Amino acid sequence: MQLSSMAGYQATHFLWEADEGVATITLNRPERKNPLTFDSYAELRDLFRALVYADDIHAVVIRGAGGNFCSGGDVHEIIGPLTKMSMKELLAFTRMTGDLVKAMRACPQPIVSAVEGVCAGAGAIVAMSSDLRYAAPDAKVAFLFNRVGLAGCDMGACALLPRIIGQGRASELLYFGRAMKAEEGERWGFFNAVSDDPAADALKAARRITEGPTFANGITKTQLHQEWNMSVDQAIEAEAQAQAICMQGKDFERAYNAFVNKQTPVFEGD
Amino acid sequence: MQLSSMAGYQATHFLWEADEGVATITLNRPERKNPLTFDSYAELRDLFRALVYADDIHAVVIRGAGGNFCSGGDVHEIIGPLTKMSMKELLAFTRMTGDLVKAMRACPQPIVSAVEGVCAGAGAIVAMSSDLRYAAPDAKVAFLFNRVGLAGCDMGACALLPRIIGQGRASELLYFGRAMKAEEGERWGFFNAVSDDPAADALKAARRITEGPTFANGITKTQLHQEWNMSVDQAIEAEAQAQAICMQGKDFERAYNAFVNKQTPVFEGD
Amino acid sequence: MQLSSMAGYQATHFLWEADEGVATITLNRPERKNPLTFDSYAELRDLFRALVYADDIHAVVIRGAGGNFCSGGDVHEIIGPLTKMSMKELLAFTRMTGDLVKAMRACPQPIVSAVEGVCAGAGAIVAMSSDLRYAAPDAKVAFLFNRVGLAGCDMGACALLPRIIGQGRASELLYFGRAMKAEEGERWGFFNAVSDDPAADALKAARRITEGPTFANGITKTQLHQEWNMSVDQAIEAEAQAQAICMQGKDFERAYNAFVNKQTPVFEGD
Repeated sequence: MQLSSMAGYQATHFLWEADEGVATITLNRPERKNPLTFDSYAELRDLFRALVYADDIHAVVIRGAGGNFCSGGDVHEIIGPLTKMSMKELLAFTRMTGDLVKAMRACPQPIVSAVEGVCAGAGAIVAMSSDLRYAAPDAKVAFLFNRVGLAGCDMGACALLPRIIGQGRASELLYFGRAMKAEEGERWGFFNAVSDDPAADALKAARRITEGPTFANGITKTQLHQEWNMSVDQAIEAEAQAQAICMQGKDFERAYNAFVNKQTPVFEGD
Repeated sequence: MQLSSMAGYQATHFLWEADEGVATITLNRPERKNPLTFDSYAELRDLFRALVYADDIHAVVIRGAGGNFCSGGDVHEIIGPLTKMSMKELLAFTRMTGDLVKAMRACPQPIVSAVEGVCAGAGAIVAMSSDLRYAAPDAKVAFLFNRVGLAGCDMGACALLPRIIGQGRASELLYFGRAMKAEEGERWGFFNAVSDDPAADALKAARRITEGPTFANGITKTQLHQEWNMSVDQAIEAEAQAQAICMQGKDFERAYNAFVNKQTPVFEGD
Repeated sequence: MQLSSMAGYQATHFLWEADEGVATITLNRPERKNPLTFDSYAELRDLFRALVYADDIHAVVIRGAGGNFCSGGDVHEIIGPLTKMSMKELLAFTRMTGDLVKAMRACPQPIVSAVEGVCAGAGAIVAMSSDLRYAAPDAKVAFLFNRVGLAGCDMGACALLPRIIGQGRASELLYFGRAMKAEEGERWGFFNAVSDDPAADALKAARRITEGPTFANGITKTQLHQEWNMSVDQAIEAEAQAQAICMQGKDFERAYNAFVNKQTPVFEGD
């Protein structure tokens, strides 16, 4: 089967750059703090779905332009129209936004978010749905759905957030809609690190991942997703199968040969 | 369907006060550190079941009188009789206590515990089964079941506690039966905050929640409960449906109108 | 049914000592930092399976000789041969290693690891699969599978590690293969404590557990394992049944009698 190339993808509603297997998505409406619109949701969803078959992108960085990550669904372009919709239309919308998270979790590329400034609503969800998260000291992550009259259960938040920061802390954020500060986020396990240059940290993390065995990394991501609600014994059997697949890969042999020859392995992702 | 009123509920085995949608339960046998009895278990269970249909209570605070939260099942009134029971009677008892936790998790009102001093056995379970927890510096939370010859698996502890503080820390507390101190509890995510006046913190948190969109808050609680053992994709679909329900609520429109008019939204819970 | 004795077990590929119900396994190839081999994997698996029926061992300590815990699968004795195997043989191997974790989780004895120095690969998995973990300040726990060209999903890591330290931190360790330091491990909930003598801490913890109600402790372990992917309500029903079993045990009565007589209970494990 022919895998596809996504390095040269031409993005319409955000910026897309690719360099040596690491793609960077930059949400780029800085004057509005990079809100999402119906169109950018859909393009992001389709992009992550396409990445499943891409053979030249091995990690993805997501950041925002102009010192903020993402202010979430645009009030005028999304929230206004939603207040006028039928249930059928509303469900089509909530399923579409949920499909973005499903696509982010289903693609084999680990996703690394670099969070500065405002990270709110759907923006907080995008950060939460990433695999790793790096923050600037001014990062404010607000699952603010209840502040706009909605429930905290948006795009998987009631399932994913408790697994990252624990049930009690997730409950507080979802019931209050208050912002989690960078320092709290690091202490609670939401952020992997806080620094003055989270974009550099995220890029460095993505490169580090890309230098590893990229096919096996995709299997790691699949299993982190798949085993979520398996029993321990089911998960162990699933991992026995998944790891056996990787043991027939050439990267495993490359690592062994490098070790025997006291060299650093160079992985090729097969 | 007619929803019921619970603000004027007359409690028999504890105190019940309601003020502007926030109800406060005070366990009130301070000379014994507020133990539970067969009767108070049953009344609490029935109360939380009734709250499912109450339209005038939107958050519940639980506290204890006299500087302690709750010493758990009364040694003389509960433990003594249990040592004489048949298996059929024992199972009826453990199911009844478990039904209290089920009822606490199933009612739409977020529950906020204010923990001072002793919080042991079934008292620790009541705190654990709440949505938010505030502690005094002297709070001691002891899942002490193994110290009375029992297993740590009481009323859901082996399922709930690991999701709040992690599997390793929960294992230690359940195998040792030792008390978790307030500072540990905050650091581990059991307590949302520690202060000299946890009752005030809990009341403030409950009011803050009640000022939000109360119908949507109930949906948040339902989803935090429901999605526990769903796959990520199932949880996302469940949230798409749940949030679409909330998007047809008037509180969502109120928030949008307030935002457009640069006002603070006033939610009405529908 | 006749339960068996394991105190006098004669181990072949590691050391085994038993004292007053606490068994200590010492991985003992210090010149190689105590790697696992096909034979030691199999013997450990069979040992933990046999412990299910043992009535004279109530907790197990695992440690390594010579200042390191375990360096994982031996490069020459395991990794080399694996690179030459058929898929059928590979799956037989990954299932065998997974069976060690299944056996560790399925035996009723709580397992306490004492981690010094190197704790890598399968060594990290053995620590992770224990119930409690104590570390020396120099402990380095590396889930280094991706550094040898494999996926992070080895022997249950993608299921177990996120429940111990959270999804974001587990993702970092599994994608980077980097070592978690002792201090991080304590802060994240992987280690229960860090001290200069983790072997003494582990032994003390094991003795403390053994002085408790050992039959009930085994039920605690079973439920921590069983309830992993149950709904909250299913877990509560499971605990109602499990605790009712323990309430008919004599240790419960012993504790009650001791309490009434203001004595310390002496448990006998039935």
